[in-house]
Amino acid sequence: MMKILQVDFPTTGPFGAQMSEMLKGLAESIANEPGLVWKLWTENAETGEAGGIYCFENLETLNAYKDMHAARLAAMGVTGLRFKIFDPNIPLSRIDRFPGL
Amino acid sequence: MMKILQVDFPTTGPFGAQMSEMLKGLAESIANEPGLVWKLWTENAETGEAGGIYCFENLETLNAYKDMHAARLAAMGVTGLRFKIFDPNIPLSRIDRFPGL
Repeated sequence: MMKILQVDFPTTGPFGAQMSEMLKGLAESIANEPGLVWKLWTENAETGEAGGIYCFENLETLNAYKDMHAARLAAMGVTGLRFKIFDPNIPLSRIDRFPGL
Repeated sequence: MMKILQVDFPTTGPFGAQMSEMLKGLAESIANEPGLVWKLWTENAETGEAGGIYCFENLETLNAYKDMHAARLAAMGVTGLRFKIFDPNIPLSRIDRFPGL
């Protein structure tokens, strides 16, 4: 059953085009993570926050990624990390045009 | 420019199939909100939380919805509501297979 991982944390950047360039290699490695269906990358230069919404094939692959990602972000100096795990409600998301459903 | 609204809050339900049935009318009304591109509905019966990830066409329509939705949830007795506004990073999300990009 697909699971959603919602992540956000304070950051000083990079944001925007610089983020797209600097984190391209990270995005490519995330694309190869076991169980990853997709990731939506999120950022807010005004509030100084970034994160992502991930969809994984199941809770096991989500938790394995979450533990690895938490350690990686800590190593990058990130604090104030917030993780939330959810089930997607597919029938309601279909009504509201979520893509690919 | 598209904007992402991330919402979550504590709730006692409904969850799952009951949520899908009880909130169908709400999902249909959200589909007609000005500026809404899509909503991903999220829920977690174990932790007692629910929310959504929304994509709006721009910040103006996002903020109009956010204010209305905050008042609606307050009227439903919801407290502990958390809103976060983000830009989607499109190039990185495309690398990570976010649908429809």
